[in-house]
Amino acid sequence: MKIDLRSDTLTLPTPQMQEAMNKAPLGDDVYGEDPSVNALEEKAAKMFGMEAALFCPTGTMTNQLAIKVHTRPGDEVICDKLSHIYLYEGGGIAMNAFSSVRPLEGDLGRITAKMVEENINNANDVHQPITRMVSLENTVNKGGGSIYDFNEIKKIKEVCHANGIILHLDGARLFNALIETDQTPLDYGKTFDSISICLSKGLGCPVGSFLLGKKTFIDQARRYRKAMGGGWRQAGALAAAGIYALDNHITLLKDDHRRAKEIGKMLAANSWVEKVYPVSTNIILAQLPQNITSTDFVEKLKQNEVYCVSFGKHLVRFVTHIDFTDEQLEVLRTRLAF
Amino acid sequence: MKIDLRSDTLTLPTPQMQEAMNKAPLGDDVYGEDPSVNALEEKAAKMFGMEAALFCPTGTMTNQLAIKVHTRPGDEVICDKLSHIYLYEGGGIAMNAFSSVRPLEGDLGRITAKMVEENINNANDVHQPITRMVSLENTVNKGGGSIYDFNEIKKIKEVCHANGIILHLDGARLFNALIETDQTPLDYGKTFDSISICLSKGLGCPVGSFLLGKKTFIDQARRYRKAMGGGWRQAGALAAAGIYALDNHITLLKDDHRRAKEIGKMLAANSWVEKVYPVSTNIILAQLPQNITSTDFVEKLKQNEVYCVSFGKHLVRFVTHIDFTDEQLEVLRTRLAF
Amino acid sequence: MKIDLRSDTLTLPTPQMQEAMNKAPLGDDVYGEDPSVNALEEKAAKMFGMEAALFCPTGTMTNQLAIKVHTRPGDEVICDKLSHIYLYEGGGIAMNAFSSVRPLEGDLGRITAKMVEENINNANDVHQPITRMVSLENTVNKGGGSIYDFNEIKKIKEVCHANGIILHLDGARLFNALIETDQTPLDYGKTFDSISICLSKGLGCPVGSFLLGKKTFIDQARRYRKAMGGGWRQAGALAAAGIYALDNHITLLKDDHRRAKEIGKMLAANSWVEKVYPVSTNIILAQLPQNITSTDFVEKLKQNEVYCVSFGKHLVRFVTHIDFTDEQLEVLRTRLAF
Amino acid sequence: MKIDLRSDTLTLPTPQMQEAMNKAPLGDDVYGEDPSVNALEEKAAKMFGMEAALFCPTGTMTNQLAIKVHTRPGDEVICDKLSHIYLYEGGGIAMNAFSSVRPLEGDLGRITAKMVEENINNANDVHQPITRMVSLENTVNKGGGSIYDFNEIKKIKEVCHANGIILHLDGARLFNALIETDQTPLDYGKTFDSISICLSKGLGCPVGSFLLGKKTFIDQARRYRKAMGGGWRQAGALAAAGIYALDNHITLLKDDHRRAKEIGKMLAANSWVEKVYPVSTNIILAQLPQNITSTDFVEKLKQNEVYCVSFGKHLVRFVTHIDFTDEQLEVLRTRLAF
Repeated sequence: MKIDLRSDTLTLPTPQMQEAMNKAPLGDDVYGEDPSVNALEEKAAKMFGMEAALFCPTGTMTNQLAIKVHTRPGDEVICDKLSHIYLYEGGGIAMNAFSSVRPLEGDLGRITAKMVEENINNANDVHQPITRMVSLENTVNKGGGSIYDFNEIKKIKEVCHANGIILHLDGARLFNALIETDQTPLDYGKTFDSISICLSKGLGCPVGSFLLGKKTFIDQARRYRKAMGGGWRQAGALAAAGIYALDNHITLLKDDHRRAKEIGKMLAANSWVEKVYPVSTNIILAQLPQNITSTDFVEKLKQNEVYCVSFGKHLVRFVTHIDFTDEQLEVLRTRLAF
Repeated sequence: MKIDLRSDTLTLPTPQMQEAMNKAPLGDDVYGEDPSVNALEEKAAKMFGMEAALFCPTGTMTNQLAIKVHTRPGDEVICDKLSHIYLYEGGGIAMNAFSSVRPLEGDLGRITAKMVEENINNANDVHQPITRMVSLENTVNKGGGSIYDFNEIKKIKEVCHANGIILHLDGARLFNALIETDQTPLDYGKTFDSISICLSKGLGCPVGSFLLGKKTFIDQARRYRKAMGGGWRQAGALAAAGIYALDNHITLLKDDHRRAKEIGKMLAANSWVEKVYPVSTNIILAQLPQNITSTDFVEKLKQNEVYCVSFGKHLVRFVTHIDFTDEQLEVLRTRLAF
Repeated sequence: MKIDLRSDTLTLPTPQMQEAMNKAPLGDDVYGEDPSVNALEEKAAKMFGMEAALFCPTGTMTNQLAIKVHTRPGDEVICDKLSHIYLYEGGGIAMNAFSSVRPLEGDLGRITAKMVEENINNANDVHQPITRMVSLENTVNKGGGSIYDFNEIKKIKEVCHANGIILHLDGARLFNALIETDQTPLDYGKTFDSISICLSKGLGCPVGSFLLGKKTFIDQARRYRKAMGGGWRQAGALAAAGIYALDNHITLLKDDHRRAKEIGKMLAANSWVEKVYPVSTNIILAQLPQNITSTDFVEKLKQNEVYCVSFGKHLVRFVTHIDFTDEQLEVLRTRLAF
Repeated sequence: MKIDLRSDTLTLPTPQMQEAMNKAPLGDDVYGEDPSVNALEEKAAKMFGMEAALFCPTGTMTNQLAIKVHTRPGDEVICDKLSHIYLYEGGGIAMNAFSSVRPLEGDLGRITAKMVEENINNANDVHQPITRMVSLENTVNKGGGSIYDFNEIKKIKEVCHANGIILHLDGARLFNALIETDQTPLDYGKTFDSISICLSKGLGCPVGSFLLGKKTFIDQARRYRKAMGGGWRQAGALAAAGIYALDNHITLLKDDHRRAKEIGKMLAANSWVEKVYPVSTNIILAQLPQNITSTDFVEKLKQNEVYCVSFGKHLVRFVTHIDFTDEQLEVLRTRLAF
């Protein structure tokens, strides 16, 4: 039995999702005529109480569009140094949006209002980029699935508001945070100027993310989406998967989290592991001692058909997801017992 | 009966294509693990005798990636002034590749070797961008589906070769040219440094294009695809549609062309039409007189459920495609008789 | 006696200008403390009735800053295909401002209001860049020093105004136009959103150009000037040369034009020349027959210490300037008599 | 008596330098014909044992050109988080070169070979930018004029060499380091792929910096200089100032450093100052306690005609330079005694 915990992007559509995809009415989305895409965009905007949504091939595209629309060349974006937008989007902030980054050292990828305040550039000094936007990630992938305290987010919002700074959320795994906290999508919709949500991670869709914001913002994002090559045609089947997932898969994340906590315990007991990071959602980070590299550890597990990824020289990541079952969890218990 | 001739991008998957999509094995394409995507990329590369292929959401993305990889900021691209890369990709040559364009006035979108030669900048003059690539489009959308003479293409290749200039093909509708001429995909593969082919136009797929070139070129394109947000996950169903189309839909283009010629005749006889451009493939351009705008004409047809698009103040475009049948053709004959 | 007519950029400071430079009070311009730079900027703004000015190392920088501030990535700039901003600024519109160009075929580099109107893109179509600015050049270098009809400029302004489009003037040689027509700098200041003026061409300064516009526009240009490396320090001596030139050199342009017309006649009588373009200001373009290349012609003159430049395969350019005297004109008469 | 210690960019040309400027032979540098510019470029290249040099208006331009030529869009640059290229060049790395930055936390602006090694991205992972260059600054402005240990530089060079990474030096104040250490310009020329040197800081020129590197590198930098608006014309007077400074001003830096150390002692004794950073060259950083802001301190000194700048909320910077004399030093002693 192969147990693949490399990423929650790896999931395959369930038969029910596949059926929804097969039945989806289609049209040309560049012409705004794909009924399934339109339905998803309306549903998403309503869910978050935001004016409009845009369905895109990837979360990298939704994040990059947000940065590109919000900033002008030579501006600066504040984010945590572990942010996906900074580390894993191919240098897109500079290449796509021509903006500088101020990466801050937060706690497991989470920055504070005080840190933001201290890192706003003097807008009257021509030597420095203008601080135009702050981007938060919730949950934080590289922070081991860590969840932001919503009170801190509200404080960050206040600092942004007071300084004319835009606040964006990379919510690739926002539903993993929502299921564990008291907030609703509407709370986030009220707080952020734009939000990016990924459907192909914990929600189990094959392809797709959506971007949320004001109508004028989404109009400009749609324009840039076209120039960047994201103006797909009959994308309705993928949108139908998204609708299905929003209706049926959010509550399943609870199980992913429960299983992740179990894996955390298994790893804490493993003799090759030095420390397990706190497990808050569906991501488990295990620190290895100096004499064991992550490459060695990954290789060792691979021999027993368990797959995880290296996340640093002595750091490995496991991610639970919709295709990872309780049955697999029990098999894993045996395989991690060394 | 609604007759939609606005574009060949509008087509819906046939039941057989849908079945191929449903049965497609899937995986995560960012990890290089989607078997259907891999199969399509291998099939495409082999078909054209090129080293490697990359499956992308749109033809705009494949064209833009080609320009971005081939050029460096401040270079210049030569193309016809009717080219899709120049007119309809949102200014992407400048915005994505930071390159200048030298748009030439060819014949129905087709430039000549002599024109290319006369427009190469002096590489020793720091005032001028370096002429780095030539991009041809075949067939030419804005040229009314015009087909390039392959002998002229070979001459252009010689000029490019002699001047160290890269030659790219926007082959969004290349199969429409191939079905009418003596060349094979291999002939084009030998002649161009890179080729972009669209699956969601005449070939009838819902979404997708592929880019062809040397392995190192495709590797860099794959890197830029990620940063531009084109690194999709389980794209296999769309790739399966592509494989199905390459196997089954190419020969159908002949019928599209036959029907387009018929429409050309109908329009030539129409009292609102001044002139019909030569119909070579599946696109028909009709010139209206100065006293009739394309908006009026489009509106007039719309009242009888016939759809075409404005292509200029007094120019309208019709495109035949896989969903347009002989039965519709006969109904159209009546509706265009005014 | 060497007679150098390659460009009006070649001039050396006169003794009086040199004295003005030596006596100039200096300070650090990045800190806004160079009194001579400040005096030039104030004088220039007042002269044109515009809010503010920015002194820069080159006319390429003032033009590029204007385009960069006025546009956002993915926009489009309309200009004549002979424009300096398009042909001779190293592809900067794309590379610095990320904007597309629509080069139009005007009359000796001069476009019309009708041409502008016909080339404005549909702002609702995501395929096309948004037409954001029009840039005129007066006089037109590549048009042989041709002068715009100010009535046409006013019509272009109306079209721009009606469509929310910004109007920029590359006035590198504007004073050459002003001295021959009825307008004043104030007329131009009222008509254009921004103006670039070069001091190191006909006005005879060693280095420098200035950009004019609204205060907010100049503030942003100053910011971009810094990032592009134009934030020089004690530039006061160069600014003092500029002040001297504005006070003393404008009227001298009349003589340059008179001498240019004489050269035009000499060239018309020359047996190697097929045609001389109309001479309106200080630039003379001579067309050679098909059997004589510009390289041959340039070489031929060089042997008699007369210098001009190739401006195309069979086109040569001569430019009169402050260092070219009546005495040289008479010597030239002999040397061109073949 | 006004004592201005805000920056070493503020200096005015000495009478001898002014005389050298007045006598400088001039020509058009865009045509490569300014004899003084050519002489400076040759002298500089020879001094550092590098193939070629390019004279530019500012050190920001020479740094930005280096980054733009060395990288391609989407690459990454490693530097200390206090680097001028990252903090004070208007976000140019992103805006001009489209490259990402990895800012590291070194010791007073100095990073180590080990830090570089640990921050090189995996070139096979399409998520991450390719680490293309490392940029060091010596001395480090924001590090209080700190000097790099040349042995560490050599180790960094080895890491770069082993990983195919380019090594650039922002040597805006390199001569301040050289005068205090055992290395020669030739040692640096052998170690770095490119070097930027500023003439308008400690060396006392009004305007100008030069960039050093291989001939092909400088050729491309010259091309980009033109497009960015740095292609000035008769820049010879400024170049002559540079030649004069290289011949006569380097040894004077020793006095600047001696006076800086004295100021350091004065500040250490000042009751408003908490701590003075180690004074290695001509920059003095003074840390203020939490209850005194740098704005207050700057204002307090201003009342006695002493000028310094805020370098953070509780940090102030003083810089000695060629216009700051021993006489001023003694007056300063009195004014800082509070």
